[in-house]
Amino acid sequence: MTNLENNRVTKLLNVEYPIIQAGMVWASGWRLCSAVSNAGALGVIGSGSMYPDILEENIIKCKAATNKPFAVNLPILYSDIENHLEILFRNKIEIVITSAGNPATYTPILKEHGIKVIHVVSSKRFAEKAEKAGCDAVIAEGFEAGGHNGREETTSMVLIPLVSSAVSVPVIAAGGIATGRQMLAAMVLGAEGVQVGSRFVASEEASSHINFKKAIINSSEGDTILTLKELAPVRLIKNNFYEEILKAKQNHATVEVLRELLGKGRAKRGMFEGDLEEGELEIGQVSALIRDIKPAAEIVKEIWLQFREALGNPLK
Amino acid sequence: MTNLENNRVTKLLNVEYPIIQAGMVWASGWRLCSAVSNAGALGVIGSGSMYPDILEENIIKCKAATNKPFAVNLPILYSDIENHLEILFRNKIEIVITSAGNPATYTPILKEHGIKVIHVVSSKRFAEKAEKAGCDAVIAEGFEAGGHNGREETTSMVLIPLVSSAVSVPVIAAGGIATGRQMLAAMVLGAEGVQVGSRFVASEEASSHINFKKAIINSSEGDTILTLKELAPVRLIKNNFYEEILKAKQNHATVEVLRELLGKGRAKRGMFEGDLEEGELEIGQVSALIRDIKPAAEIVKEIWLQFREALGNPLK
Repeated sequence: MTNLENNRVTKLLNVEYPIIQAGMVWASGWRLCSAVSNAGALGVIGSGSMYPDILEENIIKCKAATNKPFAVNLPILYSDIENHLEILFRNKIEIVITSAGNPATYTPILKEHGIKVIHVVSSKRFAEKAEKAGCDAVIAEGFEAGGHNGREETTSMVLIPLVSSAVSVPVIAAGGIATGRQMLAAMVLGAEGVQVGSRFVASEEASSHINFKKAIINSSEGDTILTLKELAPVRLIKNNFYEEILKAKQNHATVEVLRELLGKGRAKRGMFEGDLEEGELEIGQVSALIRDIKPAAEIVKEIWLQFREALGNPLK
Repeated sequence: MTNLENNRVTKLLNVEYPIIQAGMVWASGWRLCSAVSNAGALGVIGSGSMYPDILEENIIKCKAATNKPFAVNLPILYSDIENHLEILFRNKIEIVITSAGNPATYTPILKEHGIKVIHVVSSKRFAEKAEKAGCDAVIAEGFEAGGHNGREETTSMVLIPLVSSAVSVPVIAAGGIATGRQMLAAMVLGAEGVQVGSRFVASEEASSHINFKKAIINSSEGDTILTLKELAPVRLIKNNFYEEILKAKQNHATVEVLRELLGKGRAKRGMFEGDLEEGELEIGQVSALIRDIKPAAEIVKEIWLQFREALGNPLK
């Protein structure tokens, strides 16, 4: 497997497997992050749902729980980003995954601090911007991914080759990947690594509410949808909250009305507090393939073994 | 490549390569169909845009142009389907690909006539229905595909493993496939063959208007969208006609108003007559990767060579 030995993602991140756990809000605290890193993949703390003090606490606990590399996900549009940056610098975070914003804004200052920067994109255009801004790699996230997503709606099958052919930095594929065969498919399409989100929400260490984890393993095809395109497109499980969005739209709701309906705390209410009807449940289409909740280390091992098996026998 | 030798799709169809040309409206007449079949893949006549006499003429000309197997695509919701069926039987068509409707409706009568039946699905649920109805294979078509599509919006990355694990008949993947690497990715995910649409529209033999072919090779990411979900979801290139749809929706148009706006002949006007602004231009997201118009035989050869190369070297 010569090409795996030269894999630029494992080299860049100094990890055993080119698998990154996505920094999902309300799921990705120090427990999940350290479990994934200890298993040989890259754990990520999702700062998008954390106040600065909570982020710092998670970083400190994560460092106590693993000696392996881990990263912090930083949504660029986060309101208190200057405080977050200060915490990343103070705690000597080595890898930062930026998302939801212009890569040119913070990449230079992160690089000045010697941090490796990976930016999440949903288009070739933004991948080129990220490369130009000095990012070390890009994560190409397809339409099937959970949570916030691009307006182009380009799926992984098309986005991965589009982005791979446009940039020379390594491309990490995200969206629709929960198994080793999906990982291999992404790498056949030109990715050098994968970012896995939904599968890790249904892990024992995710801080997500057990109701939400059970909703994932009980979901089936067509249960998620990309919605709220008037604000920022987000993929979630259809529930009563989603029905309310639909009703509001049928009544010709303005953007302001939709923003008020979403309100503050919807995501926390759904994913962290377990309100399956009135909360926001961000998850990917691949949830239809996830049937059990298990330790994160087992998920890493399973994906890797499936990937190796598939690589040896690509046509089933 | 032992598994390729046992490929169930090539055996079922009696073709050299497990590649099927999609039966696209206004593109797939006898010229494209026979060129693809002569190149070792399965050509398909798209009857959805043909009156009965035109269909019969195309079948007769196709038989004169190739001794290889070919198929006819039959949209089940076609208004004059009884006449179409009569023509298929009279001309001893051996393979029929049904789409856009319930597989239980016509599979039995087609099977009675000794015809191999493949049904196009966009969900696991319909794949199971198709298998139960006696179909010999299913085509699993992802959200990224051009033309009419499912309401679940499941992408190829998720749909192929979902369908493959649900049925025991061979699964042929469609949606987002224009290169050999995409073909291999689909097969890694569990497909035993692929159906290629958009790539063959940009072929010399497609009966599509040259303006439309040029629009495809000049398109980029985000240029197509799945729209008209109020009627039947269809993926098309955004143009003035699409802007009119948007405007109508902003004005709270009813289903009837949208149906009137679509009218009759939009598809012909766009894809066959070359009106790029007022016509309907059905194409897949993968058009962003298609950069040239070439003979169908070269497309078949190119995909197959890329596929074999990728199989020998799956990690670039």
